[in-house]
Amino acid sequence: MGFDMYTIGVDFGTESGRALLVDTRDGREIATAVHNYGDGVIDQHLPGSDKPLPPDWALQNPYDYIEVLKQTIPAVLKQSGVKPEEVVGIAIDFTACTMMPATADGTPLCGVDQWRSNPHSWVKLWKHHAAQPEADHINETARRMGEDWLQRYGGKISSEWFFSKALQILNESPEVYHAADRLLEASDWVIWQLTGNEVRSACTAGYKAMVGDDGYPHREYFAALHPDFADVVDTKMQRTFGQLGASAGGLTSQAAAWTGLKQGIPVAVANVDAHVTYPAVKATKPGMMVMIMGTSTCHILIGDKLQTVEGMCGVVRDGIIPGYYGYEAGQSGVGDIFAWFVNNAVPPEYHEAARRAGMDLHQYLEHEAAKQKVGEHGLIALDWWNGNRSTLVDADLTGMLVGASLGTRAPDIYRAMIEATAFGTRVIIEAFEQRGVAVTELIAAGGLPEKNAMLRQIYADVTGRTFKLAGSPQAPALGSAMHAAVAAGIYPNIEAAAEKMGKLKDEVVRPIAENQAIYDQLYAEYKTLYDYFGRGTNDVMKRLKKIRRAARGDE
Amino acid sequence: MGFDMYTIGVDFGTESGRALLVDTRDGREIATAVHNYGDGVIDQHLPGSDKPLPPDWALQNPYDYIEVLKQTIPAVLKQSGVKPEEVVGIAIDFTACTMMPATADGTPLCGVDQWRSNPHSWVKLWKHHAAQPEADHINETARRMGEDWLQRYGGKISSEWFFSKALQILNESPEVYHAADRLLEASDWVIWQLTGNEVRSACTAGYKAMVGDDGYPHREYFAALHPDFADVVDTKMQRTFGQLGASAGGLTSQAAAWTGLKQGIPVAVANVDAHVTYPAVKATKPGMMVMIMGTSTCHILIGDKLQTVEGMCGVVRDGIIPGYYGYEAGQSGVGDIFAWFVNNAVPPEYHEAARRAGMDLHQYLEHEAAKQKVGEHGLIALDWWNGNRSTLVDADLTGMLVGASLGTRAPDIYRAMIEATAFGTRVIIEAFEQRGVAVTELIAAGGLPEKNAMLRQIYADVTGRTFKLAGSPQAPALGSAMHAAVAAGIYPNIEAAAEKMGKLKDEVVRPIAENQAIYDQLYAEYKTLYDYFGRGTNDVMKRLKKIRRAARGDE
Repeated sequence: MGFDMYTIGVDFGTESGRALLVDTRDGREIATAVHNYGDGVIDQHLPGSDKPLPPDWALQNPYDYIEVLKQTIPAVLKQSGVKPEEVVGIAIDFTACTMMPATADGTPLCGVDQWRSNPHSWVKLWKHHAAQPEADHINETARRMGEDWLQRYGGKISSEWFFSKALQILNESPEVYHAADRLLEASDWVIWQLTGNEVRSACTAGYKAMVGDDGYPHREYFAALHPDFADVVDTKMQRTFGQLGASAGGLTSQAAAWTGLKQGIPVAVANVDAHVTYPAVKATKPGMMVMIMGTSTCHILIGDKLQTVEGMCGVVRDGIIPGYYGYEAGQSGVGDIFAWFVNNAVPPEYHEAARRAGMDLHQYLEHEAAKQKVGEHGLIALDWWNGNRSTLVDADLTGMLVGASLGTRAPDIYRAMIEATAFGTRVIIEAFEQRGVAVTELIAAGGLPEKNAMLRQIYADVTGRTFKLAGSPQAPALGSAMHAAVAAGIYPNIEAAAEKMGKLKDEVVRPIAENQAIYDQLYAEYKTLYDYFGRGTNDVMKRLKKIRRAARGDE
Repeated sequence: MGFDMYTIGVDFGTESGRALLVDTRDGREIATAVHNYGDGVIDQHLPGSDKPLPPDWALQNPYDYIEVLKQTIPAVLKQSGVKPEEVVGIAIDFTACTMMPATADGTPLCGVDQWRSNPHSWVKLWKHHAAQPEADHINETARRMGEDWLQRYGGKISSEWFFSKALQILNESPEVYHAADRLLEASDWVIWQLTGNEVRSACTAGYKAMVGDDGYPHREYFAALHPDFADVVDTKMQRTFGQLGASAGGLTSQAAAWTGLKQGIPVAVANVDAHVTYPAVKATKPGMMVMIMGTSTCHILIGDKLQTVEGMCGVVRDGIIPGYYGYEAGQSGVGDIFAWFVNNAVPPEYHEAARRAGMDLHQYLEHEAAKQKVGEHGLIALDWWNGNRSTLVDADLTGMLVGASLGTRAPDIYRAMIEATAFGTRVIIEAFEQRGVAVTELIAAGGLPEKNAMLRQIYADVTGRTFKLAGSPQAPALGSAMHAAVAAGIYPNIEAAAEKMGKLKDEVVRPIAENQAIYDQLYAEYKTLYDYFGRGTNDVMKRLKKIRRAARGDE
C-alpha cells in the first residue's frame, strides 16, 4: 500500500475557477470544487464605479484568483478526507492571453490606490477585444519590417494577445504603463503568488507573447511600434521561461495558509487551459490532434519539426509537450453556430416534438438528422457564421448555405452545419499534413462531442480518422494535476503521467468507408466554395459587410 | 339610361371555377360565384377506382367544367338581378396547358365507357409532370434537327406542354391515342361545348402547342418523335385559330339551358388565365410588364417585334394583345419560397410576437424587416428554392444564402428572400431590354403584392420601375369579361375595353433613389453569384442534387 500521493490541478476559467484533487497513481478524480469570481467578467464598469467601460472591454479582478485558491483547495481537502501531507504538488491552467500590470513586488496595479480607478490597471481578460488598432499596427509593422516570426502565427497577431494589450495600455494610459514594473500573464502572476517566484510559462510566452526559438522580437521592432515601447521586454518582462511540468518553486507559507496545503510542495509552471488538455486525454505523440470543442474549436497537436502552416494560430517549441513543437489552430464558430441555428431558425413544430420526446432541441434535431444517409439533404454550408480563424484568418467571412429546396427541413440544415464544421476541421488537417505535420487520429474534449453521437461519426467519416473522446469532463484540471505530478517528481515526464493518469472514453468511432466516399465528394464541393468565397475570387462576403456597416452608419 | 349591357367572364382554375358578372361600361363587378370541381385534382386514383396513379400525374374530369357553367352563371344572374337579355357576351380563361382526348363530336374519351378506366382518357392538368421523358425527347430531337422554333421557348419545351402530354399518351397508351379523333386544350373543348364550334385559341396554340407565325412544326419533325406521331396535327388537330377577343360562335341552345343565358350571344375565343390578366390591369402597350405573383410569378409583356429572349417561356404573335408579339417569362419560386421560410425556418418567439401583435407571421416579419435600411442585414440569396424558370431554365438549381452571422435573425432572411425574387425579376427585365423589348413599368396582380407593402417598394427600388397594383382581386375573370365585351362588339378591341373596364389601384410605388443606389451594388453581387452558380462555372447545385438522388436511391 504505502503512502498515498495526490495532486491538485486548478483550472481558471472565464467565470470561475475549479480545483480537482487527483490520485497520482491512476488519475482517479477524488474531489472537485468550483468558485465563481466575485467580480466575474468586468465589462460594464469597474467595481465600485458607475463609469461605463468602452465597448469590447473585458477585465478581471486578480484577487478573485486568490479567492479561488482559498475556497476551492480547502474544499477538496475537506470533501475527500485527503490529508495535506498526502498532496504532493499543485499546478494551474488559465485562459490566455489574460494579462495584467504589477509592481516589482507582484502587487497588481489595480490593488494600488493611486491606480485602482484606472481601468488599464486591471487584468485584461482573453476576450478583451479593444486592442484591435494595436493589433493592426503590430501586424502592419511586422509585415513592413519583414519579421519572420509573423509566419509562426499564421501571418497575423490577434487583438487578444499580449503585446496588443500591452501597447493599448501605453497608447491609452501611458501613466499606468510607466507605473508598471511588470506586465505579465495572470497565470504567471498566480504562480508568483504561490511560490514567491516570477516564472513565466514557456507556453503562454510562445503562443501569446511572440517568443520563438530565439526569444522575443528584437528591440528595433518594438521601437517601431512606439518609441516608449522599445524596452518593454527588458524593463517589464523576462527572457527566461519555465518549462511545462517543471517546478516554479515551493509553496510559500502564505499560500500554504491560504490553501491548507503543506508549505514547500512543488508548484508547477503555469499552463493554458486548451494546451493542458492535450496530455489529459492521453495525447502525447505526433499524429494525435486534440480538439477542445465548445462554442469554438481549438485544435492542439505536436510535431517533431518547426513548420509554418497556413492559418495556424501558433507554433511553439515545448509549448504543449516538452521536446516537441506544439501547434495550435482553431475554428471560430462551432457550437455557437449550432446554437445560432437552434435559437434562430427552427420552427415551433420541432420545439414541440422535442418537448414531447423529452429531449432538448439539439438532441431532437440530431435524432432526426441521424436517420439520414450521407448526402441525402443535398446541402453544403460554409461554417463561417463567426468568421474563419484557420486557415483563412479572416473575421470578415460569413456563413453560406447552398442546395436549399422547398423540401428542406430543419434537421437537414442542422446536419449540414455540423458537416460544415467537420469539413472545416479537414481543411485544417490537410493544411498541417501538407506541411509534413501528421494528423492520424482525433481526440475531442468538451460537452459538444460528448453529447452528439452523430457529430462524432460525421467527424470520423469526413476526416477519415478515428475519433475518441476525453475521459474526463474536467480535462483541463486533470491535465494540471498531471503536470503537478511531474513537477513533484512522481513521473519523469508528462508522457509517463499521461499513460497512467490521462483518460479516454472506451468508445472509438471509426470512419465508415461508404460514408467516406460520399463525404469525399461533398468535401470537394466544400473546398471549391471555400476557395471561391474565402480566397478572393469573390469577396462578396466582405463587400456585404461593408455595405452593411454603411447602412448602419458604423462607418 | 338605355339598355344595360353586362358580360360574364369565367375563370377556370386548378381547384375551382369562378364566374364574374361585369358592367361593360365601367368594369364594375356586379356578382361573382365559385364552384369547386367535384373530382378536384385527380392525382391519387381515378374516380371510382382504387388503382393508384403513378407519381407526378394530375388529371381532371371535364364534366366538372360543365358543372361550373351550370352552377356559377345562374348564381351570378340570381345574385345580381341582371336579366339574361342584359348579358351580351361570355368568355372564359383557363389554366394551360390542360389538354384532353375527345371523339369527333367532342365527347371526352373519359366519357366513353370503353376508355373511362384508362387514365390517359382523362384531362391532363397543367401540373401533370409525368411527361418529362417525352419533353426531353422533344427537346433533344428539336436540337438535333436544328428546329428554329425552339428558340421562341427559351430553348426548352416543358413537360407541361401540349406535345409532351400528347406524346405520352401515344407512348403509354397507343389505343387511347388512336381512339382520339381530337387532342385539344380543355379550354377549347369548353368553347366547343358552349358554341358547337371547335375553335382553337391562338394563345394556347402559340404558347403551349409550338405554333409560330408559320404554323406548327413540320411533319418530319413529328415523325422523328415517333412514326405514329407524324400526322398528329392533320389527323387530330387544326391549322386555323381564333384570335383573342374574337367570337368563337353563338351560345347553343343547350348551353343556354345550362346557364340561363340567352341563346346566340357571342362566346369569345378561350384565353389563358395569366395572359387574360394583362388587359384587365390596363396593360395594353409595349413597356408594361404584368406580374401575376403567387407561389410563382408569371411575367407577361408585349412588343412590336419578334425577338428571342434568353430563357423566356414563349413569344407568340397575337398571344396577349392582338397586333403585338406577346412575351411570357417566369420565376418558379416566389410566394412559395416565402411560405417555405415562414413554415420551416422561423423560431417560436416570432410566432408568439406575431400572435401578440394580431398579425400573421408574414405580416409580422414584413413589419420587422421593413424597419431596416437597404443592405443592413448583410445577406444575399439566390431565389432558386424551386429552380429557375427564366432566364436559366433549369429546374436543378437550388437556393443559396450568403452573409449569415451569429447576429442574423429571421426578419433579415425574410427580407433577403424577397429581395432575391426582386433581383430575379430584374434579371428577366434586363434580358428583355437587352433584346430591345422595353420594360418601363411593373403592374402586379395577386394577393402577395397586395398584402406586402415592403415587397412593393423593394421591387420598385431594385428594378428602378414604378410599381402598380391590379385593381381587382379577380383580375382573370374580369379580363375574360372584357374579352366577352369585345367579342360582343361593345368595344372595337381589347385596348378600348381595357381603358374603360380595366382596373388599377390608385397607389403608385416609385423607386427611391437612395435605395436604388445600394440595390445596384447588391444586384451586382447577385448577378455575379447568379452567373457563378447558374451558368456552369460551379455546377455544385446539380452535383448536390445528383448525390442526393443517389443517397435516396432515386437513381
